[in-house]
Amino acid sequence: MIDLYTSPTPNGWKASVTLEELQVPYTVIPVSLSDGEQKSPQYLALNPNGRIPTIVDRDNGDFAVFESGAILLYLAEKTGRLLPADAKGRSQVTQWLMFQMGGVGPMMGQANVFYRYFPEKIQAAIDRYQKESRRLFEVLNTRLEHNEYLAGDYSIADIANWCWVRTYAWSGVAVDDLPHLQRWIDAIAARPAAIKGIEIPGKIDVDTETFVKGARKMLV
Amino acid sequence: MIDLYTSPTPNGWKASVTLEELQVPYTVIPVSLSDGEQKSPQYLALNPNGRIPTIVDRDNGDFAVFESGAILLYLAEKTGRLLPADAKGRSQVTQWLMFQMGGVGPMMGQANVFYRYFPEKIQAAIDRYQKESRRLFEVLNTRLEHNEYLAGDYSIADIANWCWVRTYAWSGVAVDDLPHLQRWIDAIAARPAAIKGIEIPGKIDVDTETFVKGARKMLV
Repeated sequence: MIDLYTSPTPNGWKASVTLEELQVPYTVIPVSLSDGEQKSPQYLALNPNGRIPTIVDRDNGDFAVFESGAILLYLAEKTGRLLPADAKGRSQVTQWLMFQMGGVGPMMGQANVFYRYFPEKIQAAIDRYQKESRRLFEVLNTRLEHNEYLAGDYSIADIANWCWVRTYAWSGVAVDDLPHLQRWIDAIAARPAAIKGIEIPGKIDVDTETFVKGARKMLV
Repeated sequence: MIDLYTSPTPNGWKASVTLEELQVPYTVIPVSLSDGEQKSPQYLALNPNGRIPTIVDRDNGDFAVFESGAILLYLAEKTGRLLPADAKGRSQVTQWLMFQMGGVGPMMGQANVFYRYFPEKIQAAIDRYQKESRRLFEVLNTRLEHNEYLAGDYSIADIANWCWVRTYAWSGVAVDDLPHLQRWIDAIAARPAAIKGIEIPGKIDVDTETFVKGARKMLV
């Protein structure tokens, strides 16, 4: 059994969509970011960065894993699925996983900060991050022109990127004229595990204004 | 033999310090970022994101690997070094590697953009990224209080984080009052492989103004 500490954000969904896809039994422990639960001493003992998600593997000596990218690798290696066993295949998946971790996630995340949450409207910063996110979408679109998925069969690289890219509208970034990316977004969105995973730990049931107010409190 | 396409940046040094540490023979191919060589069709065929570094493994069917984090994993797995073989040990290394890929790298990178390169001085953005970088340094410092290295023995997680953290002054972020982080920075800085790796593909021999001018041209 896996304990999953999570919140309804792209990084949280990466873990829940992966767990659903792998059909690994797991217990959901919601973490309220607006209440600062991710900074409690108990939580920091599991996740020294004070972010979500975190997993604790009850079947492996209560081993805790933080950083969403590392959680996906751990779960894929534990089950031998969503990640090829051969060196080249594995590397292609880790390359596109790192592309999300170092590119798509941080750039869309900063677009969200300046487009949605920041107290001042700084157009140059909004433009910078939306433009960079769009550039990364174009890289994905080119990759997906001749590949059904990012790295061979459906993998943790697809899950990681999809959980962010699907929220393009929230970041104010268009996917117009990116037909291969759109095809891939829609194909993953139809998977039962994806449908279920993005409703963990629950649907976002607050209005936009309340959500933005909560997110603002978390800005460093 | 490995071909390394690189430039004198923290992400480039991650690859060269790792190659030096592993004593894997490699050929350096400098990529001029200010001339836009990373966007040439030949280079994009190896690295679809148009960034550095990239490696091509001549002994493995000219297999190309992009994204610095994926390069470190590939080299560690190829040689069976700088990354434990057991699941828990491996995961601890990938957790701190992902912490660098998704946290330290992007946040220091954005601090550099707004503190050094951005055409306008936007104090709120400078503050945001310097403050977040400092917070990440504090997480590292806490981790290093009771651990000589980030994840067991010296590993690719240390190399990845060190190549960024050592440039704290360029990002305008202090390491004052972080004695464990300072001890770790100094310990790695004394390693022959680190000393050699950070001079690949050559010392930065331009003055700050010229460097900043070149970097500005690359802003998206």
